[in-house]
Amino acid sequence: MSVTDEYLKNNEAYAGSFSGPLPLPPSRQVAVVACMDARLDVYRILGLGDGEAHVIRNAGGVITDDEIRSLAISQRLLGTKEIILIHHTDCGMLTFTDDDFKRAIQDDTGIKPGWAAEAFNDLEEDVRQSVRRIEASPFVTKHESLRGFVFDVATGRLNEVTR
Amino acid sequence: MSVTDEYLKNNEAYAGSFSGPLPLPPSRQVAVVACMDARLDVYRILGLGDGEAHVIRNAGGVITDDEIRSLAISQRLLGTKEIILIHHTDCGMLTFTDDDFKRAIQDDTGIKPGWAAEAFNDLEEDVRQSVRRIEASPFVTKHESLRGFVFDVATGRLNEVTR
Repeated sequence: MSVTDEYLKNNEAYAGSFSGPLPLPPSRQVAVVACMDARLDVYRILGLGDGEAHVIRNAGGVITDDEIRSLAISQRLLGTKEIILIHHTDCGMLTFTDDDFKRAIQDDTGIKPGWAAEAFNDLEEDVRQSVRRIEASPFVTKHESLRGFVFDVATGRLNEVTR
Repeated sequence: MSVTDEYLKNNEAYAGSFSGPLPLPPSRQVAVVACMDARLDVYRILGLGDGEAHVIRNAGGVITDDEIRSLAISQRLLGTKEIILIHHTDCGMLTFTDDDFKRAIQDDTGIKPGWAAEAFNDLEEDVRQSVRRIEASPFVTKHESLRGFVFDVATGRLNEVTR
């Protein structure tokens, strides 16, 4: 049995006690952008209830065109007004460089990715980089709040990054 | 008090009963790609424990270069071997077209986005589209399992999309 099959078994139990459906627009008008890291259970870390907030995640919790796309849809079509950015300690993105990662892929496949891997070596600087990419976007402009945090995987605490 | 401030209060309670840290690599070697929709509490829907699986999310749960980037890092640096794709019923991506959305942004800002909005009108077809984009990528090739599902926001159940 694959792990996927185990998770589908879990879903049967989830569906058994499920009460829905909730409305489509996020009821608390918040969008979260966080790292994909397995230790970040974003709903629990922030105490999000079902239906409250959009949750966007990728390697690093960085802002690329795809996060701008998601945030533009979130704000313009579904009315979110606050953005919460979450990076975290012990992040995989701190453990390699773009050059080495892309070289390894090229050596393995013969093809060098056309995209940046978005590795970084300073967590707080990269949170500020994400803030600035959003501030520089002409498409994500409807928010009233934009704040960035580092989640500490040892303590469970969110620490705000000052600009 | 902003909603962000309320969520930070919730985080204090979370940190109060937190036990960590867990290791960086996902212990069950799974990567999930799901829609950012507020009703998809992915950890609960699949019964994911802390530290088990990468969770990647965006508007629609679609596969673009940024999801290829995240999946390549997930597989090549952190050893995941199964991919689970999750779209869902009542998705916002079913409610507009790329042309209309980009026209509205251009009318509002003067600038037409250079990216696709990735709207779709057939859920199962778009799950298959995501599967095919992964299959076509030279960079995401290390998985032993790749399966796609539609989450029903009325019942809480994952329904598998056949190829």
